[in-house]
Amino acid sequence: MRTDLQYALQLDDQDPLGRFRDEFVITDPHLIYLDGNSLGRLPKRSAAHLRQVIEHTWGERLIRGWGEEWFTAPQRVGAKIAHLIGAQPDEVIVCDSTSVNLFKLVVAALQAKSGRQKIVTDDLNFPTDVYILQGALQLAGQDFRLERVHSQDGITTADGALSAAIDEETALVELTHTAFKSGYVYPLRTITDMAHRAGAWILWDLSHSVGAMPLALSAAKVDMAVGCTYKYLNGGPGAPAFLYVRKDLQEQLLSPIWGWFGQKEQFDMALNYQPAAGITRFLAGTPTILSLSAVEPSVDLILEAGIDRLREKSVRQTEYLIGLWEETLRPLGVKLNSPRDATCRGSHVSLGHPEGLRIDRALIEEMHVIPDFRYPDNIRFGIAPLYTSFADIHEAMARLRRVLAERLFEKYSAERPAVT
Amino acid sequence: MRTDLQYALQLDDQDPLGRFRDEFVITDPHLIYLDGNSLGRLPKRSAAHLRQVIEHTWGERLIRGWGEEWFTAPQRVGAKIAHLIGAQPDEVIVCDSTSVNLFKLVVAALQAKSGRQKIVTDDLNFPTDVYILQGALQLAGQDFRLERVHSQDGITTADGALSAAIDEETALVELTHTAFKSGYVYPLRTITDMAHRAGAWILWDLSHSVGAMPLALSAAKVDMAVGCTYKYLNGGPGAPAFLYVRKDLQEQLLSPIWGWFGQKEQFDMALNYQPAAGITRFLAGTPTILSLSAVEPSVDLILEAGIDRLREKSVRQTEYLIGLWEETLRPLGVKLNSPRDATCRGSHVSLGHPEGLRIDRALIEEMHVIPDFRYPDNIRFGIAPLYTSFADIHEAMARLRRVLAERLFEKYSAERPAVT
Repeated sequence: MRTDLQYALQLDDQDPLGRFRDEFVITDPHLIYLDGNSLGRLPKRSAAHLRQVIEHTWGERLIRGWGEEWFTAPQRVGAKIAHLIGAQPDEVIVCDSTSVNLFKLVVAALQAKSGRQKIVTDDLNFPTDVYILQGALQLAGQDFRLERVHSQDGITTADGALSAAIDEETALVELTHTAFKSGYVYPLRTITDMAHRAGAWILWDLSHSVGAMPLALSAAKVDMAVGCTYKYLNGGPGAPAFLYVRKDLQEQLLSPIWGWFGQKEQFDMALNYQPAAGITRFLAGTPTILSLSAVEPSVDLILEAGIDRLREKSVRQTEYLIGLWEETLRPLGVKLNSPRDATCRGSHVSLGHPEGLRIDRALIEEMHVIPDFRYPDNIRFGIAPLYTSFADIHEAMARLRRVLAERLFEKYSAERPAVT
Repeated sequence: MRTDLQYALQLDDQDPLGRFRDEFVITDPHLIYLDGNSLGRLPKRSAAHLRQVIEHTWGERLIRGWGEEWFTAPQRVGAKIAHLIGAQPDEVIVCDSTSVNLFKLVVAALQAKSGRQKIVTDDLNFPTDVYILQGALQLAGQDFRLERVHSQDGITTADGALSAAIDEETALVELTHTAFKSGYVYPLRTITDMAHRAGAWILWDLSHSVGAMPLALSAAKVDMAVGCTYKYLNGGPGAPAFLYVRKDLQEQLLSPIWGWFGQKEQFDMALNYQPAAGITRFLAGTPTILSLSAVEPSVDLILEAGIDRLREKSVRQTEYLIGLWEETLRPLGVKLNSPRDATCRGSHVSLGHPEGLRIDRALIEEMHVIPDFRYPDNIRFGIAPLYTSFADIHEAMARLRRVLAERLFEKYSAERPAVT
């Protein structure tokens, strides 16, 4: 495999998605941003749209903005995200945070699946998912329990152990589709079928998948899903999350948070809760319109680029990064913490090193390369094919090599900061 | 009482808060906006700050924005709101919606007050509050129940009936401090004491009070409170809400939504939930940073103007409006649906008319006056003393008189729209 800069530049030249880089605010050409898996870059059109929403709709239309534009935004943006995840437009809605949406669906599932008192997950899951499960189970009562399957290395699929854990006691299987440390991607359909064979429902957290790869929720008959919009969807810091419920389950499930935006005939202001029809019943309070407004143009951008083309480029780019690792970083003691097989790898690559945290800091401070770090030793390099170039990857790995060769990380503390 | 325009202009001239009107984006001088009790106007400094957060912090600092600015925003903005409601800085946090925050606190209270299975509220309460209570009680089990006290006319205080309902079975009393229809304001301390005498906790919804009048939560030993930031705080459409828990109760209460922002040592990414110390434990998922960013400069503006001065002006303005009603609108069949006594009246005045909805529409469409309408007959005129002038009020009432005198409402439908 060729890994030289010339080749990277050639790939960028031939890249059919190359023009999308211009859609983003990039003011510092020296900065290589490889953390789009944590917070995506700002699309120019989102900045423009936000200005319009703030200065015109809020500033001038004032309360009329609700009727003219905002009231239907959770459903409208949800329908667009549905296209990205292979769901029907009326199966997805945007609201609240991933944690709150998880809570709604987990509690709803436990109430609907009465007689089954177990939730199955694994330790590749994102912490907030596990916490939410623990909290929902504590609320459900002492007969309820969590079975958390152990996965040794964060790469190997936990299918064997999962299969053993999912049984006739299981109400729900909740997993993160793309693991946040290794980037390992579960076989969505296989695990969904596994849950269904045991009569359980499945809830996928798509936070590290959506916008980076095509998903086929309807085809796999996925029951429920949640995901965030601030990673590959570039929706902005803390942008509201989405929630998917398969059409035929919507009327069986009731969110525990009975808010007025989930009420049938909301503006009757009646004092008895009656859930709205369809996906709207999963709304709770007033949607955060400014944050939500940044999501729509960002999703449009992904739809324009095409999710299949994005995945194709992402795979080529993670392959290219791994090629560079193999050739130039493995000899320096860097491990590959992500799957070698692209079919079960997401859009970020974790490189492992015992001095990972200090290396991450040196990359940011000395080298103007921004990855991020996850314990114990994962330096995560996120590929966002809308704006990451092959040349970015080549240069980032060259700078990483320099940090290692010149031991530039030694002046940085290994103490964990409050925010990583 | 003088009500003529000359007098209004004179009051505006002498108004020590007059200069604050210039702090807001006001592009159409003909439009009289009296719906700040639903959605406050856009402060110029919020527009500027949002642009900075979007274009600089998100656009250029990218993920570093979390460590530099965003991570502590829920606590930082909460501490500012604490000043407005007479609480300690570490007793308030900004996050999620009012509905979600209510849910967290109600469920936490029911769990902590074991042995008591009743919640008391009244029908002056805002619908989402009642729904949330109903949902939380359904979750708690069939032994739990809601007692909703009836209040005849929406003005009379329900103290008598409340007092009878609050007993040794009562875990929690949950009320909206300023009623959304009539603007009636509960005697906060009296009702809080009433709950405490029965051994119950109280949870106040301050949505229609905060920013419009001083509140003294610590002095009254209030247990819990929530409120929104998009009304008199001018935080923008769907801006995140706040949540207050009295210091000595914080460690006794556990939010049911165990999200990663409420986790102790969040970035250890451990897989067992341990609630953070203090008010931070009531966070759930990732905060909606863009929406949250609009709240801080808006709250600063209120702090600068001074909440006592704002209340003083608000009272004079609602008195002035009621004076105009008495003189010119009562003779036309318009009722006063708000308390006559300023000490139990918030910052909006509801005028009642059987054709209220159509009159509201005519005011907006024909007269460029924006109030809002709440069933069955309330045309609400919100006074936001930061930007409402006495001349605004004089002119709005003159236009209302014209709508009535010329029956301009007759061409508008009385059918309820989806969004009001």
